[in-house]
Amino acid sequence: MLKIPNHQVAGHKAIDGMIGPLIDDSGNFYKPLQNDDRGSNEVSFYESFNSDPRVPNSILKYFPIFHGTKIVNASDGSGLHPHLVLQDVASSYTNPSVMDVKIGSRTWYPEASEDYIKKCLDKDRVTSSIILGFRVSGLKLVGSAANEDDLSWQPDRKFLQNLSAEDVNLLLSKFVSSNMPSKDAAACPDRAFVDKVFGGSNGVLEQLLELKKWFEVQTIFHFYSCSVLMLYDKESLLNGKSSGGAVVKLVDFAHVVDGKGAIDHNFLGGLCSLIKFISDILASPHDQNCISNNNGTKDEH
Amino acid sequence: MLKIPNHQVAGHKAIDGMIGPLIDDSGNFYKPLQNDDRGSNEVSFYESFNSDPRVPNSILKYFPIFHGTKIVNASDGSGLHPHLVLQDVASSYTNPSVMDVKIGSRTWYPEASEDYIKKCLDKDRVTSSIILGFRVSGLKLVGSAANEDDLSWQPDRKFLQNLSAEDVNLLLSKFVSSNMPSKDAAACPDRAFVDKVFGGSNGVLEQLLELKKWFEVQTIFHFYSCSVLMLYDKESLLNGKSSGGAVVKLVDFAHVVDGKGAIDHNFLGGLCSLIKFISDILASPHDQNCISNNNGTKDEH
Repeated sequence: MLKIPNHQVAGHKAIDGMIGPLIDDSGNFYKPLQNDDRGSNEVSFYESFNSDPRVPNSILKYFPIFHGTKIVNASDGSGLHPHLVLQDVASSYTNPSVMDVKIGSRTWYPEASEDYIKKCLDKDRVTSSIILGFRVSGLKLVGSAANEDDLSWQPDRKFLQNLSAEDVNLLLSKFVSSNMPSKDAAACPDRAFVDKVFGGSNGVLEQLLELKKWFEVQTIFHFYSCSVLMLYDKESLLNGKSSGGAVVKLVDFAHVVDGKGAIDHNFLGGLCSLIKFISDILASPHDQNCISNNNGTKDEH
Repeated sequence: MLKIPNHQVAGHKAIDGMIGPLIDDSGNFYKPLQNDDRGSNEVSFYESFNSDPRVPNSILKYFPIFHGTKIVNASDGSGLHPHLVLQDVASSYTNPSVMDVKIGSRTWYPEASEDYIKKCLDKDRVTSSIILGFRVSGLKLVGSAANEDDLSWQPDRKFLQNLSAEDVNLLLSKFVSSNMPSKDAAACPDRAFVDKVFGGSNGVLEQLLELKKWFEVQTIFHFYSCSVLMLYDKESLLNGKSSGGAVVKLVDFAHVVDGKGAIDHNFLGGLCSLIKFISDILASPHDQNCISNNNGTKDEH
């Protein structure tokens, strides 16, 4: 039985009669093929990526496993529709905190239509893409079970639009804090999970650095409008379960094009920008703004 | 006595009655201040760059030394005009080979006027900037003195427009070859100087990698439309003089803006792309195309 995923934070969603992704109980994610070129492009990408001997094995784990395509009933009740069958990267988590970061200051590719380029460029300019080299496309922060009013927070697109460097620092800090979620911009995230989620040999930073190494040399693909997804499970981490640890996955490959002999400098630049934010938070585990705003009372957590 | 420089390969030149840079015999380069914001922006950049304690000493050597501004007679005979007084980075070379690479897939900055953005974007799209993350803005290849017909080659803008990855690989190979210059695209560069110019602890690659490290962390400046200049002197290298060695300098800071807390992902991405080309040439000192085209006869040089 296919159902609507709980943990999707960005992209087309299967709500209000719209066609969107579905999941099953076996850990599969069914992504409806878009009718224009995007659907077939994404299938082509997964096929060529998985069969290309130049892609090192160490990199495969950063991509959802691809199980081909399958015709299943669409989420909107419109009947049978072809879907990509992918690994449901959230399936191993009970209640994950999720962040979707669309990488690259430019989301359009050179061969696109003028209309498409204009649409993307306008969006790149009103979001943080041009300034920061990425934009936060989606976010779900899971709170502590102790506070039932505060179970989770999933900001809407409008909230995530046009974030400054300071805003992104705050959101990434909230992402690894126990005293969140909260819309309250003045609240001070305690960064209680920063070492477990961003740090360590299996943490987000190490995973992003391994991806960076590949992006410094790979000239096969240019990934436009592709996202880095970061997930972890707060409660599992609190209970000392290793399964709650942070995972990084790349998703959304409808706009991947041939690298034509050059590295993907647009993706790499944005990735390095995200890495810098995360490194800074790791290097300064206490939020400096909180310390100064609270006369040092927040210096312990 | 000020004179017109011999080794300028890009930018406004002091020829045909146009205002352009001048040099003196003491190693100074006089760059006329442009009347619009660009002139004052470049002065402001040099002043703030040189006084900013966050800029590490190890990075200063990649920028021309700044000696302030001075009013001197303009090259076009129009009378007194304010000039930036900079280190003439070519002054220590007798007859340098020079390459000017404008870094970044995007040469416009967010706060620019719509007209300026459109002009830059159009140029980024018809040159290699969007695809490769940089474009070759100027090039002067000095030949071997033995062949007097072939003393130097300085391709025009049209030739350098819209280079593919393969074209850039060939130009960079020619840049470090003894059997150049030549317009002949089929000619096989011998890459005789590759180890001395691109390689080694003082070579171009190491210098670019040091710059890269800084760009991975610095959030002070975003360098739009700025170039990496690479220079070396073939004859000095042939005569075993250390003074002929390769130098990397950043030039042209009329469009530097505040980094606003993010790294310069646009510059960093393009820089990494250039680094990949140079690393590839170093890793394969014989041009593979030449070897296959000549049944291996070019395998020795």
